[in-house]
Amino acid sequence: MIDWGKLAAERLTEIAKISEDGPGVTRLPFTREHADALALIEGWMRDAGLETHLDAAGTLVGRTSFTGASQTLYMGSHQDSVRHGGAYDGIMGVALPILALKKLSSEGKTLPFNVEILAFADEEGVRFPTALIGSRALAGTYDPAVLHLKDRDGISIDKAMRAFGLSPENIPKLKRNNNQALGFLEVHIEQGPMLQDEDLSLGVVTAICGIERHSVTFHGVSGHAGTLPMRNRQDALVGASKLIGSVHELALNTEHLRATVGALDISPNVVNSVPDEARLTVEMRAPDDAIRAEAAQKIEDQAKEIAEGHGLTISYDKTYAQPAQQCADSLTKPLSKAVEAQLGRTLALPSGATHDASAMADLGPMAMMFVRCKDGISHNPEEYAAPDDMGDAVHALASFIENLAKTV
Amino acid sequence: MIDWGKLAAERLTEIAKISEDGPGVTRLPFTREHADALALIEGWMRDAGLETHLDAAGTLVGRTSFTGASQTLYMGSHQDSVRHGGAYDGIMGVALPILALKKLSSEGKTLPFNVEILAFADEEGVRFPTALIGSRALAGTYDPAVLHLKDRDGISIDKAMRAFGLSPENIPKLKRNNNQALGFLEVHIEQGPMLQDEDLSLGVVTAICGIERHSVTFHGVSGHAGTLPMRNRQDALVGASKLIGSVHELALNTEHLRATVGALDISPNVVNSVPDEARLTVEMRAPDDAIRAEAAQKIEDQAKEIAEGHGLTISYDKTYAQPAQQCADSLTKPLSKAVEAQLGRTLALPSGATHDASAMADLGPMAMMFVRCKDGISHNPEEYAAPDDMGDAVHALASFIENLAKTV
Repeated sequence: MIDWGKLAAERLTEIAKISEDGPGVTRLPFTREHADALALIEGWMRDAGLETHLDAAGTLVGRTSFTGASQTLYMGSHQDSVRHGGAYDGIMGVALPILALKKLSSEGKTLPFNVEILAFADEEGVRFPTALIGSRALAGTYDPAVLHLKDRDGISIDKAMRAFGLSPENIPKLKRNNNQALGFLEVHIEQGPMLQDEDLSLGVVTAICGIERHSVTFHGVSGHAGTLPMRNRQDALVGASKLIGSVHELALNTEHLRATVGALDISPNVVNSVPDEARLTVEMRAPDDAIRAEAAQKIEDQAKEIAEGHGLTISYDKTYAQPAQQCADSLTKPLSKAVEAQLGRTLALPSGATHDASAMADLGPMAMMFVRCKDGISHNPEEYAAPDDMGDAVHALASFIENLAKTV
Repeated sequence: MIDWGKLAAERLTEIAKISEDGPGVTRLPFTREHADALALIEGWMRDAGLETHLDAAGTLVGRTSFTGASQTLYMGSHQDSVRHGGAYDGIMGVALPILALKKLSSEGKTLPFNVEILAFADEEGVRFPTALIGSRALAGTYDPAVLHLKDRDGISIDKAMRAFGLSPENIPKLKRNNNQALGFLEVHIEQGPMLQDEDLSLGVVTAICGIERHSVTFHGVSGHAGTLPMRNRQDALVGASKLIGSVHELALNTEHLRATVGALDISPNVVNSVPDEARLTVEMRAPDDAIRAEAAQKIEDQAKEIAEGHGLTISYDKTYAQPAQQCADSLTKPLSKAVEAQLGRTLALPSGATHDASAMADLGPMAMMFVRCKDGISHNPEEYAAPDDMGDAVHALASFIENLAKTV
């Protein structure tokens, strides 16, 4: 009997060594590390009986070859990491479904559809100011204009891809046929503490949260901190502080809403001057766009009320919005059944972060499974998922595929 | 009849032209502008019948020559400005007492004490990272170590003074005899809105506020703004915001206290991360050290309570403290009487800012008179005091000197 969790951990430990120098894992797209990682992943894929090829976007594809099957289930995630990241984010979602297919193959199982395992080049967007080219290419939402974007050494994506042996002019041809796609399932380390808090190794994602970002600037009047009386001060930072408190309270009291003031800069920012400007960001995330929209309106109203109450003026802009994407019942039902069979119970939870699955949702049904993350720490060398939890994931993925086979 | 206000305004307009290029007035110590300004001031002093000399610290001294008088009343302020400052801050406190002496002299008045008008070189501390050398020299609190401090061109104070024709080794000899000092009176533009709000041209200062500065850092735990649940977040900025609100509320509700969070920096300061560090300054000023001490303790207690309530740790340091300096009855009584005679009433108010008078308080009794400041705007080219208000000041100063003469 193969210990699937132990094998997964061995493989992730081995591939984590393929990294730039420094703490943790730093593996950027279209680099020597990317090439070395793909060589290893290709070995895993072949070991599971998959046929492999590198597509024009740099996605390594491993495909089953069940004859007569017209439909395809897509699974996978990204090979790249953030700088000084962990050994699980992304790459776990490549390694585990390969092992699930190896398990089914070793048990002599055949399927009424084919499965493609996708190891995307770039989801983190660390090297270039864009990401998700591989998944967008498959979903048909790829924009060739991004090829001109450059990394900090001035190398364009186009040039980096060609140096990697790719032909980016062929990326538009990668679009898959929606009618033949059963959907995309991504396995990912949770990057949060909810499964640990619930004492569960696996969770079934309900939706990828929508995101909305606001840029808020309070404008007041500066003055000498010693000579300006307190009454009638127009202190931009005092206004900003009220809003920060309001945003936090609203999110604490609104189920499924996360809201964060992550960035704040003030002027003139010296010990003895009343601040005349405070610029901050508010980010809201919710699995339900109606929850997010209601919160966004409340926060904007509160900001304007605070400004008025403090003699400040305000500039308020919505700078970014990305709708929530619901996971598809056609995938989450067989997935939940598989997780429940493995663990005795299941937890449904939203994904607060964006993933390759966000882009793949434009191709067809999308679902995600989370694996427990030690202390919720991710994007950090300390990131950790236990071998037994990954073993549970391999079992659940194999069962999911079998459950899905019964429905098509 | 001389229109003293008009003459004061003409003189201040003329000397304001002696400035580096750029908006407003930029006149730094031991520069060509300083020398040109002193030539003009020396003319004003001689016009008032004063004997002049430049002392070893670069202070231009104009002295009456009443024979048989052993005591001396000191009056004056600084010739320098901030960069792009106004035409009144400092220099008004040199021009107006010269006019008061001119007025007394033109009326044939003699005094039982001598008066020295002091035009200090440097109070603003803009060119070098220190200030008040001239006033500290007279008070006997000058530290020769400061001569090694350099401006941003690498020129030390010692070198700058010598190039200006001074012999800094003689500064320690400048210390005046405390027993013969009647005290120091400084006239200064208010730099705040209180006189304007009270519709008064002049005010009598009760004390120069003590100052205390705290450096506070909240340490929390960062995390992905999308994946970290709201419950149990350890958001350093949320803690800092609570403290900013508390500091503001406390000062609003504590008479004579001014408290300001002027500087705030957070980490990592990006839109999608929970801040794990927030570093801020709290500055408190009060004319009474007991008020300041009580407020400082409350703020420190609140900061620690906030940290505990939000799962944060805190670093809390007192980085600076300067005691309040009370104005002396021996000077404020004859001054208040003079102001009341001129205006019909008087307003007693604290000085939130530090002045040459802060250093001169170590020599003997100290007092200040404020002149109304348009909209409280200072350290700015828009700084403005009306000619009529300065005329009131000249009259009140002359009366003050006569009132004082009756008491000695």
